[in-house]
Formats: sequence, structure tokens, C-alpha cells
Amino acid sequence: MDRQDALAPIRERFRLPADMIYLDGNSLGAMPQSVPDAVHEVVVDQWAAHLIKGWNDDGWMDLPHRVGSRIGELIGAPPESVAACDSTSINLFKLISGALRIQEEASRGAVILTDSGNFPSDLYILDSVGELRIVEPDEVLESITPDVAVVALTEVDYGTGRRHNMHAITEAAHAVGALVVWDLAHSAGAFPVDLAGVGADFAVGCGYKYLNGGPGAPGFVYIAPRHQSHFENPLKGWLGHAQPFDFSSEFRPAPGISRAIVGTPSVIGLTVMDSALTVFDHVSLEQIAAKSAKLTGLFMDLIRQRTDPEAFEILTPLIPEERGSQVSLRNSNAYPIVRALIERGVVGDFRAPDIARFGFAPLYVRYVDVWDAVTAIAEVIDSGEWNQPRFNQRFSVT
Amino acid sequence: MDRQDALAPIRERFRLPADMIYLDGNSLGAMPQSVPDAVHEVVVDQWAAHLIKGWNDDGWMDLPHRVGSRIGELIGAPPESVAACDSTSINLFKLISGALRIQEEASRGAVILTDSGNFPSDLYILDSVGELRIVEPDEVLESITPDVAVVALTEVDYGTGRRHNMHAITEAAHAVGALVVWDLAHSAGAFPVDLAGVGADFAVGCGYKYLNGGPGAPGFVYIAPRHQSHFENPLKGWLGHAQPFDFSSEFRPAPGISRAIVGTPSVIGLTVMDSALTVFDHVSLEQIAAKSAKLTGLFMDLIRQRTDPEAFEILTPLIPEERGSQVSLRNSNAYPIVRALIERGVVGDFRAPDIARFGFAPLYVRYVDVWDAVTAIAEVIDSGEWNQPRFNQRFSVT
Repeated sequence: MDRQDALAPIRERFRLPADMIYLDGNSLGAMPQSVPDAVHEVVVDQWAAHLIKGWNDDGWMDLPHRVGSRIGELIGAPPESVAACDSTSINLFKLISGALRIQEEASRGAVILTDSGNFPSDLYILDSVGELRIVEPDEVLESITPDVAVVALTEVDYGTGRRHNMHAITEAAHAVGALVVWDLAHSAGAFPVDLAGVGADFAVGCGYKYLNGGPGAPGFVYIAPRHQSHFENPLKGWLGHAQPFDFSSEFRPAPGISRAIVGTPSVIGLTVMDSALTVFDHVSLEQIAAKSAKLTGLFMDLIRQRTDPEAFEILTPLIPEERGSQVSLRNSNAYPIVRALIERGVVGDFRAPDIARFGFAPLYVRYVDVWDAVTAIAEVIDSGEWNQPRFNQRFSVT
Repeated sequence: MDRQDALAPIRERFRLPADMIYLDGNSLGAMPQSVPDAVHEVVVDQWAAHLIKGWNDDGWMDLPHRVGSRIGELIGAPPESVAACDSTSINLFKLISGALRIQEEASRGAVILTDSGNFPSDLYILDSVGELRIVEPDEVLESITPDVAVVALTEVDYGTGRRHNMHAITEAAHAVGALVVWDLAHSAGAFPVDLAGVGADFAVGCGYKYLNGGPGAPGFVYIAPRHQSHFENPLKGWLGHAQPFDFSSEFRPAPGISRAIVGTPSVIGLTVMDSALTVFDHVSLEQIAAKSAKLTGLFMDLIRQRTDPEAFEILTPLIPEERGSQVSLRNSNAYPIVRALIERGVVGDFRAPDIARFGFAPLYVRYVDVWDAVTAIAEVIDSGEWNQPRFNQRFSVT
């Protein structure tokens, strides 16, 4: 399968540890080979050499837009509709607040519909700005009633890998006059997203998962062109101002997507992302999606064929269109199992309370990695190797 | 003066362009020599090599606290009271919202007192969350009336360099039951700040000016220990949660300063800052303040002695304790004058509408630079060299 994989050469664009099968790119993407030179250039050839002049000479001020444009191409966003900035939570706060304000002006109240599969910190933000209504993921469509102001969902469930039908949900929301905010944290870079095609209103996403922007990379924010002129950012910063260098004491929002920006761009982090995103150059998103479906499908097949049928419940949908690029296995000992696998060099992660989660980044995970990972999983289970006290010492990161 | 300067050797800790007199460290600090290795290490030896394990093995999760502690030592903050994260505007939003919430619970209304010398984007944030009352800088003390809920000021005026009396203002605010939020953007790293000594409630500041954290570096946030347990962050993120890895759907704030954090730490940016802040190791803040006063005083003296007395109005206070580490000169042609100086390699900056601003970072600016800068200024003025069309093409960055 690897020999027939048209994406196989893309793996060379990453620097990967030789002794690791990395199935956690949905938590922290691998480092593109171009990053060390790019980061050296920005600190030595730009910051140290040009100092303040870098803002003009090195195009720093445009970085949120430049990186945003690259991301926009991966998520079906029209030009000038994506900016890279801040963290996912902060970007979600901006968009939910802005969407609610639009709805309040239309006297549509402040009910936010979401689901229990949303990432917990998305729920914290939603709960802090509106009236939260949480339903089960499969009840979302029927719960979009006329009293809902905003539907806010993460497309791919970080826990189970279940993927929502963005098109159907967005359409149903618009039919009752609701706005939709999508969190694409586990979508962008893993398969094509078609924001313009589904008519999405707003979206946020994460820079350090499938976009490989590095630990704590800036997130991104999408505002549909039709909303940009009336979107009000609750975080009024000087780079969201129409004329930052007038130093006016009155806030006047910038036109377009710029109004979603707040403070000075994180030049070093954005430069890393700008460079990292070149791994997507000349790569077809359809090929990425096809490989994602094959990798995850193969993994589930092999888990069924090669491990004790009692060992795992597969939480991830079997139909490719209904899942992201991860597979989640339930086992009450998921934590020590994941730790034992990490010790063997097979790196997935644990999600409380009982999920072993494996991400398959199509740009650098090989089919042979899937085979070898399942071999390790089967051995860890069959041998009882996981059942050692040292594997219960707790640590874990998204 | 340089030969007698105990801080002179510290300049070697920075990489500075040979052909530039850099008087804009109050906008973007120079690059410490340790940064290129530090940034290479974090991307190649940590991110690429350890991937997700970096969060534990490389101490990434602790970066906001580690960098916060370094900054805390420069601003008189007790241990565990400073975190480095997000941008100054976003941090100000957190603190002002949190301070107002405390005051609202005490039925003290939402009046925020500030001054016209505050940075414009601070005003945007203040205006978006409370009832803004703007007075002149010299009217602040008398304007602290019992109906004021929060006093929010930038210690050093970015335009004029005027410095507030933090002690007197904080004391006056507390006397009427108001809380104080200080913006230390132009203070931290330029002279000692004594947050604990003056009894400040809250503070924010900027990482890329006198702290030399690089373009768009994370800012910082200070919460006095006495407020930490009841401070409510309006931006509820997963790293402000008491148990992020429980993935609980209910937000429960972390104890201590952690609750001021929102999303995943910007590991690369914070690593740069962590390294950059080592330039302050074994350097006395009192020496820094003394050199700052001497550099700025010398500059003003030489401007008076060596330039046309009609050319500039000096906006910066003559008394050292009443100014920051910058000098602002007013001239209706400040813009082309600054541009002409930049062409000569003397880099200050322009602040609308008519200010030529020169910052003196005591760790790397020499007395000879002050002399040479004034020579260039005098020549640019006397020759009329500034009066050329190309110097009126607009660009400028904080």
C-alpha cells in the first residue's frame, strides 16, 4: 500500500524521529523540514538585523493574512476571509460573542446549541457568553429549533472521531435563522473542508494539529464575507482598528477579516506556521482525505482481525465520511495501555476516562505504521505488559 | 561615560546591527545572543524529536509560569503571581473584566478612570467593558472619587514618556475602595517596578519592548495574591481550568495565577522569551534605572545644547522619576525627520501627529550612541535634509 501511495514522498517533508510510530499528529503535528531554517531566518536575518524595520521590510504585519490565506485554501474559504491569530478559545470567544450580538440585534435571544461531543473548553467559552443548550451529537439536527440563535459545534469529536455533517447542519440552522460557528480543530489539514460550499457563517481552528504549526501555534478565525462588515469583535485591539497608526482614541473596526485580529501578530509563531504550511503545496486535499479514510479503515480492520475481540470497543464510525482522521478505542485500562505503547515507541494518546486515541496524519503516517502499531497493541494486550504500576503514573496533553 | 558604565559589558549579550544606532527598543527590543540556539533547540531537539512528549519532557506546560517568574523579578511581584501569555490587549481585557466583576459584586458600579495618555488600544478595551472616564494625566489623582470602581493606567505614556506615581495613585485608589490595573508596557525591564510594594491589584505588560522577547512576543499578567482566589477570568480556557486533563464539561478555575491563562501556551514564543530574559541575570535593576536616567538626561541636555532651540519641544519630564526610558521631541515635521534619521542609521520612531520618539534601552544603548544620535539630529535639522518627498511616504509601527 505504501508503494502505491501517491502521498508517500510527502513524508520526506517532515523530520520524524526514527524510533517512533507517531499516531498523535491530531494532538501535535510533526515538524516540517523547512521550519529550522525559517525560524533561524526570522530571528537572525530579520529581528536581529532589521529590528523595528522588520515590520515593513519583512512583511511581518501581513503575517496573519498570509498564513490565513494558506489555511483558507485547505478549508474552502474565499480570499480575505481567514486570519491566523491568538488561540482557539480566544478566537471562539470573539466569534460566538460577535454571532450572538448579530442575533441579539435581530431579537433572536442568546440560545447556543451545541453537543456533548464538543471539546470541553469550547463549552466553557460558549457557556460564558450565551445560554447553553447541550444535546447528544446525534440529536443536533432535530434540536435546531427556531429559538436557537447560534449553533456551535466541533466538526470532529476529539474523543470519538465522529464527524458531523456540516452541510446538513448549516442548512438546517439557516432554515430557522440561526448562525453557525464551526470549530475545525480536528478537520483543517486532515481532509477538505468546504466552508463556502456549505455556507458556514464563522469558523475557528487550531494551528498545531494537522496544520503542523508547532506547539502552541496560533489558531485561526474565519468570517464569511457576508458577515464581515457587521461583525463586532468583543476584543477591540489596535490591529483590529481601521487605522492603527493614527493612534485614535476611538475604536473604528478595520474592514474585512482584519477586524478579527486584536494585538501585535506573533511574528515568530506565525513565521513557523507560514513555513510549515508549505508541506501542503501541490498536494491534493482529495488525496489526503482518501488516505485518511484508508489509514483509519485499515487500522480498524486490523484491530478487529489481530487483537482480542474483547479488548476494545471501537468508538469511531465505520463509514469514512462520518469520521475524522483518528480512531478511538475504548478499554477501561486505556491509560496504562497507551503508556505501555509509548514505551514501545507507538505514540497515541489517552482521553479520559477510558479512550485510547490514535491519529493518522495522512501526510506522514505510512500504512506500515498502521500494521506495526496494531502488532504492538496486540502484543501489549496479549502479554498483559500494560499491567505494571509505572504505567499508571498520570500525564497527558491534548 | 561608557568606560565608567558598569552595564557596558551587558551590550555583548545582544546581537546588534553594526551600522545602526538603535533608539527604538521601547517599540521592539533587540535580540539577545542566546535566542538563535534556544529557538533551534525548541524546534529541532524538542518539537521534532520528542513531539507530544515535549509537553512533559521539555517542561512546555510550565512555560507561562517559568517566564512569568522571570518577569516577576523585574516588577516586584511575589512568586506565583505572574503568567506570560496572550497579548497585552487580551490580558487587559481579562483583568479589567475581572476587576469590574469584583467591584460589581461589591455594588461599586462600573466606572473606569483612565487618562488621555493611555495607549489607544488600552482605551478600546476599557471602553468595551466598563463606563470610561478619561481625564488628563495630571488630573488623575484628584479624579479618584468614591464612584470610581477601577483605575486603569499605563505607567509610562507611550507618547510623551511621562511616568505616573504608581505608589500615590494606587494608595489614593485604595483609599476610596477602587482597584488599580497597571499597564507596564513601557516599564518592565527599563527600571524597577515594585508591584507588591505599592500594593497594586493587577498589572499587564508587553514582552517585546524592554523585555526583548521578539516581535509579537507574549505579554504578561499579574494578579496580586490576595485577589487570585476570587478573580474570574472572562476567557475560560482549558489551561485556566483546575484539572485540564479531566476534560470536564464544567469550568472550574485553577488556583492561583494559572486561572489567568486561557489556551495552550505558545511554546516557541515563550521559549524565545525565556531565553531572552536571561540578559537580566545578575544585573541590578537599580543600575538599569540609573543608566536610563543618565541616557535620557544626557540626550535632552545635548538636544538643548546642540540643536536649534526652535526645532523641538521636549515633551518628556526633566525629573528622572517622572519619566520612562524614552525622550519625545515635538516638531510638526517629526515624520520626515524620523525617516531621514533612519536613513542615516539612527532609528527612533514617529508617533502621530508630531512626535519624534527615542527609546534608550539601558542594557544595550551606549552614551556614545546618544552623542552620535544628537549629532545626526542636528545635521538633519540644520541641513534641511529631512525636507525631501521620499521621507513623507508613510509607514510606522509601535
